Amino acid sequence: METITIADGIAQVNSTFMKAIRRKDAAAAAACYSADGMVLAPQSEPVVGRKAIETFWNGFIKAGVTEVNLTTTEVIEAGNIASEVGRYLVMASRKELDHGKYVVVWKIESGEWKLHRDIWNTSAGA
Amino acid sequence: METITIADGIAQVNSTFMKAIRRKDAAAAAACYSADGMVLAPQSEPVVGRKAIETFWNGFIKAGVTEVNLTTTEVIEAGNIASEVGRYLVMASRKELDHGKYVVVWKIESGEWKLHRDIWNTSAGA
Repeated sequence: METITIADGIAQVNSTFMKAIRRKDAAAAAACYSADGMVLAPQSEPVVGRKAIETFWNGFIKAGVTEVNLTTTEVIEAGNIASEVGRYLVMASRKELDHGKYVVVWKIESGEWKLHRDIWNTSAGA
Repeated sequence: METITIADGIAQVNSTFMKAIRRKDAAAAAACYSADGMVLAPQSEPVVGRKAIETFWNGFIKAGVTEVNLTTTEVIEAGNIASEVGRYLVMASRKELDHGKYVVVWKIESGEWKLHRDIWNTSAGA
């Protein structure tokens, strides 16, 4: 019997998210979040719920972002939630726009891992 | 019998942290973190461990920060860890230097709640 670990489950959703951004599909990116998911982005008020999160990522895509690359560095499991730490790289075509780190609190919703609280900041200038 | 809720436990440590900053005691601020605690600050590489975290907060104090005010907006409990979302306000004397939001992943260590993963970003310009 195969077992899917939490880290695998999170990796799958991150992969789905990255592919969604690459094909400019903000709705598919937003579908990776929980129903009451929250994006806590720099220079922004908290963005709550899938519809608002779709609009948020659509703004990124319209601004020229072609890739958001995520690399998980840690997953801590705790029942129905998990904490992930990772690094991100935001690209516009072949140009780096930003790089930094993030924390995502994941939540199981209808048997699937969803991004529940998503926050990041830049490492530029470090 | 009195029960201390997780939210109370977190509020107590946040209060301890805020008082430590106010009296310019970076070691006491760092003691609020887990032994392998991590501060993920903007424009900075990850800061890992109490000694490095003490140096980090000492840098804030030396730069003129007199208060870091924390307001919890959400706590999600999950066994030995908890996720907190909140708002911060950084002051230099009576002047606001920055305001924004944060996520802290808390961990129980020797029966006490400790900041384990701490990340924030500014809401300035939002």
